[in-house]
Amino acid sequence: MNDLFLRACRREPVERTPVWIMRQAGRYLPEYRAVRERVGFTTLYRTPELATEVTLQPIDRFGMDAAILFSDILVPAEAMGFDVVFNPGPVIDAPLRSSSDVRRMRVSDPEEEVPFVFEAVQQLSRELADRVPLIGFAGAPFTLAAYLIEGRGTKNFDWTKRLLFAEPQLAHDILDRVTQVTERYVAAQVRAGAQAIQLFDSWAGLLDPALYREFALRYARRVFQATRSLNVPLIYFALNSAHLHEALAGCGADVVGADWRVPLDEVSRRLGGRFALQGNLDPCVLFAEPAKIESCVRATLEQARDLPGHVFNLGHGVLPQTPVEHVAAMVEAVRRHSR
Amino acid sequence: MNDLFLRACRREPVERTPVWIMRQAGRYLPEYRAVRERVGFTTLYRTPELATEVTLQPIDRFGMDAAILFSDILVPAEAMGFDVVFNPGPVIDAPLRSSSDVRRMRVSDPEEEVPFVFEAVQQLSRELADRVPLIGFAGAPFTLAAYLIEGRGTKNFDWTKRLLFAEPQLAHDILDRVTQVTERYVAAQVRAGAQAIQLFDSWAGLLDPALYREFALRYARRVFQATRSLNVPLIYFALNSAHLHEALAGCGADVVGADWRVPLDEVSRRLGGRFALQGNLDPCVLFAEPAKIESCVRATLEQARDLPGHVFNLGHGVLPQTPVEHVAAMVEAVRRHSR
Repeated sequence: MNDLFLRACRREPVERTPVWIMRQAGRYLPEYRAVRERVGFTTLYRTPELATEVTLQPIDRFGMDAAILFSDILVPAEAMGFDVVFNPGPVIDAPLRSSSDVRRMRVSDPEEEVPFVFEAVQQLSRELADRVPLIGFAGAPFTLAAYLIEGRGTKNFDWTKRLLFAEPQLAHDILDRVTQVTERYVAAQVRAGAQAIQLFDSWAGLLDPALYREFALRYARRVFQATRSLNVPLIYFALNSAHLHEALAGCGADVVGADWRVPLDEVSRRLGGRFALQGNLDPCVLFAEPAKIESCVRATLEQARDLPGHVFNLGHGVLPQTPVEHVAAMVEAVRRHSR
Repeated sequence: MNDLFLRACRREPVERTPVWIMRQAGRYLPEYRAVRERVGFTTLYRTPELATEVTLQPIDRFGMDAAILFSDILVPAEAMGFDVVFNPGPVIDAPLRSSSDVRRMRVSDPEEEVPFVFEAVQQLSRELADRVPLIGFAGAPFTLAAYLIEGRGTKNFDWTKRLLFAEPQLAHDILDRVTQVTERYVAAQVRAGAQAIQLFDSWAGLLDPALYREFALRYARRVFQATRSLNVPLIYFALNSAHLHEALAGCGADVVGADWRVPLDEVSRRLGGRFALQGNLDPCVLFAEPAKIESCVRATLEQARDLPGHVFNLGHGVLPQTPVEHVAAMVEAVRRHSR
């Protein structure tokens, strides 16, 4: 088994920097689009054989150093009794607006409600046994709650922030329930075979530092604390979090994901040098020529040179129009220049 | 004339903190909605009498300390030969994709192409003469160019960033033309009577510091340098710019606008203490009860206490669903607690 990824997460020595990319099983891959011509997105993540197939695609094609379960961060919402459809972004049938809405949030057992997730993890875990580690994931509680309140992805998540200011207790009630389910959800992924867990806090960057600590950081940390005893590397990725770095240092993860906005050495300094970092090439770099991609990869590796641990990644998900040969050029550049 | 706003911009002593809010003439006001029931958005900003009427509405209702011209940041795109419709956000008929597209960008004279803007400024300037100053505005060159490239507001402006990485010379050609027109556009507003100019760099926060300096800051600074001799306060507002503060210190404006993500005293420190600041209450605070609004206003004023100059504002435009009485409560709290 190639354990470069796990060692980098644990800040142990590595021969070269491990690399994977967010949304690596996705629309930029012709073999993924071929599967999607046969089945819809929902069927894909609900069918363990299909989720396994697309999860493996970027491992087979590029030799990525980690696999990440193909799924969606709204799956735990299904486990809590919400109807989610994809159109193409997620839409929640009856978003949370009042305290009576909160009472219909079920703090259920994800293994009973969404068993397909753990079946996919088990199957992947078997198929990947002698290859690379499998990363399980979930939305961080604030980000999942934001979807449940907003009903869909929006530009500024105004309904959610309105609730934080106007009805903070209601927001805490929602977050507490989401956190309980998320704790169970990630623990079950680890029991099924996931060897690392990443929490995506995609909307935390909309909050000022005080709100962030009260409504986002606190609940992400609860999930990490509950998962700590399972002894797998824990990764926290809060997009657009340059203004939150000081608070982020208290997240309780082992690895912090960073987008392209702040150079990795600067992120590490702000976090007190205690974390391995994951990131942070701008996904739009992959539209440039391979020579430019290579020079940007080298610049990122250079900024990461003195980190306690570095997992190369993009600063956000790979974009659907990205040329596959440019992803290959990026992976090759990481391999060549990080030995 | 109440010149609190101009004095705060110039870092001169004031009896109390001046206040206005971005999008203060907008959908949250019943009197604005009444006008919009009669005419469309395009007619409204293209008709000087109507633009004047709605610009004055928040001055009449709340006694704001500055008026800002009712218009749209895409008006200079019309002056350059683009067809813009609002649906409801702006959509550009034929966005820029190649160097041949760039050749159809006309570096025209805005006073000939969009005379209604300057007629509205003249009329407002007469009607406001003994009341409050009038702020003229434009999109900063990067942000206007991003709309011209993207064709509409999008989440991450991927096409634009793709161009910056893959075809930087083409991006510079576009930005140079946009900058020339923007220089003329803001100068003509000042000649027509605008007493301050604000550039909105709404999408600059998507860039890393290196790209920001090369493609955004440099062109905003060119506009400020060209406008400097007209001797009016110059305001630069880059949303979501916590990671750009060090670069921002070179923007060449007198006042820097800040969103809610970083406390004002921290923003001022990072900018070297040389700027008056404008901001930065989270617009979502206005959904809370008046007592909560008051305590948030006091916290903002407290953070701004030692600044060389402070113009109270929101950290982004006021939201359409905001209760008008909450805006009144905010204005009243600024007046009461900043003497």
